[in-house]
Amino acid sequence: MLRVDRMEIIPVLGIGLAKEGDDVAELIMDGVKKSGINLEDGDVVVVAHSLVSKAEGKIVKLDEVTPSHHAIHLAKATGKDPRHVETVLRNAAKILRIGHGVIICETHHGFVCANAGVDASNSGGEAFLITLPDDPDESAHRIRSGLRRLAGVDVAVVITDSWGRPFRKGAVNVAIGCSGINPLLDLRGRKDLYGRVLRSKIICVADQIAAAAGLVMGEADEGTPAAVVKGLQYDKTNIPARTIIREEDEDLFR
Amino acid sequence: MLRVDRMEIIPVLGIGLAKEGDDVAELIMDGVKKSGINLEDGDVVVVAHSLVSKAEGKIVKLDEVTPSHHAIHLAKATGKDPRHVETVLRNAAKILRIGHGVIICETHHGFVCANAGVDASNSGGEAFLITLPDDPDESAHRIRSGLRRLAGVDVAVVITDSWGRPFRKGAVNVAIGCSGINPLLDLRGRKDLYGRVLRSKIICVADQIAAAAGLVMGEADEGTPAAVVKGLQYDKTNIPARTIIREEDEDLFR
Repeated sequence: MLRVDRMEIIPVLGIGLAKEGDDVAELIMDGVKKSGINLEDGDVVVVAHSLVSKAEGKIVKLDEVTPSHHAIHLAKATGKDPRHVETVLRNAAKILRIGHGVIICETHHGFVCANAGVDASNSGGEAFLITLPDDPDESAHRIRSGLRRLAGVDVAVVITDSWGRPFRKGAVNVAIGCSGINPLLDLRGRKDLYGRVLRSKIICVADQIAAAAGLVMGEADEGTPAAVVKGLQYDKTNIPARTIIREEDEDLFR
Repeated sequence: MLRVDRMEIIPVLGIGLAKEGDDVAELIMDGVKKSGINLEDGDVVVVAHSLVSKAEGKIVKLDEVTPSHHAIHLAKATGKDPRHVETVLRNAAKILRIGHGVIICETHHGFVCANAGVDASNSGGEAFLITLPDDPDESAHRIRSGLRRLAGVDVAVVITDSWGRPFRKGAVNVAIGCSGINPLLDLRGRKDLYGRVLRSKIICVADQIAAAAGLVMGEADEGTPAAVVKGLQYDKTNIPARTIIREEDEDLFR
């Protein structure tokens, strides 16, 4: 029989609703214990940005937003609340497309996503919006340090959001921040099954991890804001998720 | 302690190199046995298209391709072999972008991907190219029926390819064919953590499954063309992967 390395993806249950100032590593460790997970060196802890953003106070009260004329105009075009659009504009460095009820933006981080990552779901109710962390790589680094301090383990951390994309329906979980892992695996120079040298193959491991965890995390009422991946072989070089961003001059769709 | 549903992703090892006419379900069952996997009802079997394409004879001999003038012209612009470009053109319904050594095409299936899915990797050597199956959903259906016949199990099958995408570096595994599963999970109408009704959330479960399996499959010399996913809750409605394709008039980037 061949030696098979199984990978396990375990939802972290029992994490309560986060509030500003909460320590995300503590929230995760609380859930890890309740879920009976044995967190070990080399595991990957995947965290939904909503948990991180709430702990970091990245919640916007709609009542406190005064929409600009531009936001009011775009609100008509997209069918959104003008205060929601105003919050999108404040979180966008650039607008790429408008249509079908979404504003495709480049965020201040450089990410290209719908509505600059500003979301009404899981924000805390109709009166609130949730935005992306200011520096998701730094957030991942802090969570990783916290888990080392609290549990004595050296894990990788991947922070995710669920994004739509061109050409294909449905959102998939992607990595917006990471620590303790190289998000990109460069296979160039390695050989294929027949010995041919691969010339152009780079794999976005972090996005595949995010997507895998997305299968057990979910965003609806049964939502689970974290998951633990066990048994994955990955490059532990500490490289930020912002390196996943394709530079504009290498992008055929910007 | 909370009840935690773990998901497992198990690489299917020991699958030999496929050749035209091979029964993919037999190849997979051979690997499943060698890998000591207990294939059960409700498992998802993920298969790299390269295995399927080879069994279906979707291999092109470069020597037998005569490039058109258009192909020769595009070959200069992209630095590719003119016969490779000719094969891309034959597999493309439309060209969307050309640059950075790739030709972004809409395939005859409607998929938008680099080089119409025509690949020199794992094709069998420098003299060959591999193309996508003619109907990956039909291929998935055949593999699923084969596994039912050979092993008496009712599983879902997802056929994958590894694709680049706009805005983000690195390829991720995506679903190009499926059977026994609804590739899209529509959460609209369900409630978020705070009771707010979700208005726009559709998740591409099949792409998340493909990406998850991509973490154990790989395409380099240690490549593993199949994986088994256990413990995943999914909608068993039989809906083809071609429903993932976003219609052109709903696409902001075509």
